[in-house]
Amino acid sequence: MNLKTFIRDIPDFPSKGVVFRDITPLLKDPKAIRYTQEALLDLVGGLKVDKVVGMESRGFFFAPMLAARLEAGFVPVRKPGKLPYNTIQQSYNLEYGSDVLEMHSDAIQKGDRVLVHDDVLATGGTAKATCELIEKMGGEIVQCNFLLELDFLNGKDKLLKFEVNSLLHY
Amino acid sequence: MNLKTFIRDIPDFPSKGVVFRDITPLLKDPKAIRYTQEALLDLVGGLKVDKVVGMESRGFFFAPMLAARLEAGFVPVRKPGKLPYNTIQQSYNLEYGSDVLEMHSDAIQKGDRVLVHDDVLATGGTAKATCELIEKMGGEIVQCNFLLELDFLNGKDKLLKFEVNSLLHY
Repeated sequence: MNLKTFIRDIPDFPSKGVVFRDITPLLKDPKAIRYTQEALLDLVGGLKVDKVVGMESRGFFFAPMLAARLEAGFVPVRKPGKLPYNTIQQSYNLEYGSDVLEMHSDAIQKGDRVLVHDDVLATGGTAKATCELIEKMGGEIVQCNFLLELDFLNGKDKLLKFEVNSLLHY
Repeated sequence: MNLKTFIRDIPDFPSKGVVFRDITPLLKDPKAIRYTQEALLDLVGGLKVDKVVGMESRGFFFAPMLAARLEAGFVPVRKPGKLPYNTIQQSYNLEYGSDVLEMHSDAIQKGDRVLVHDDVLATGGTAKATCELIEKMGGEIVQCNFLLELDFLNGKDKLLKFEVNSLLHY
């Protein structure tokens, strides 16, 4: 199945000059969403995984499915103020300014084998901050797994320590 | 499996006097997340479903899994400005003021049989606005499906036209 036919290009979103890769046509198609789930699982291969960490909000589309299929638990990473229990935080740089991500302080046990999943790897800022949160808690990152990677933004360079696997490349 | 043992009470979140039901311990447990998925599917029973609609952000945890398992497509409902393509909007009342939800204008086809899923049914404002969006587009709501229902808030009263099925009641 050629999944790229289910990705819609939106020019000038969220800001002028950016081409946004809209995955909602893929999610909306019963065959494409199932195919994507299986293909993301294939990327993980035979890795043993204890936790799948997904980033707010579009990382939530596939990370819990991957967790359930891998017989792992799912952990959300969210923007500040959304998680109700004790959290640890990690700030990261944006093009202008910075932002913060949070994870519950009891989300990862020391030695947990962790799969990181998000829909898109762009500049890698969110993924890097997420990996830092996981390592602070003693987790071992076994793979960073993306539906879609924007190669020209070189996000992989921020994740050199890790195995990075993306289903689609642009 | 007693899923309530995986729900954590957080007093005074997000505001004083509110007890927040935190589902992250359930998501984090490999057996509990799988059990929950199967139990939510059992609530759907033998209904034929074309689309599963999930609400930002915690509705995204289970709605795509339900869609894949039901051989349906998944459609996200989001806060304004997040969806990149043409949208239709619905406003709804909060305790103080109001808010708006959006759905892509091509998300639902006329005659689609739609399952609405969110993690929690509280006052029902979000669920009602979501159902209104779906009906505007010609979809037929076959069930509103929740992981957890706060019975004392009477959210069901806003959804009298629909079948409402929740896994856990508080």
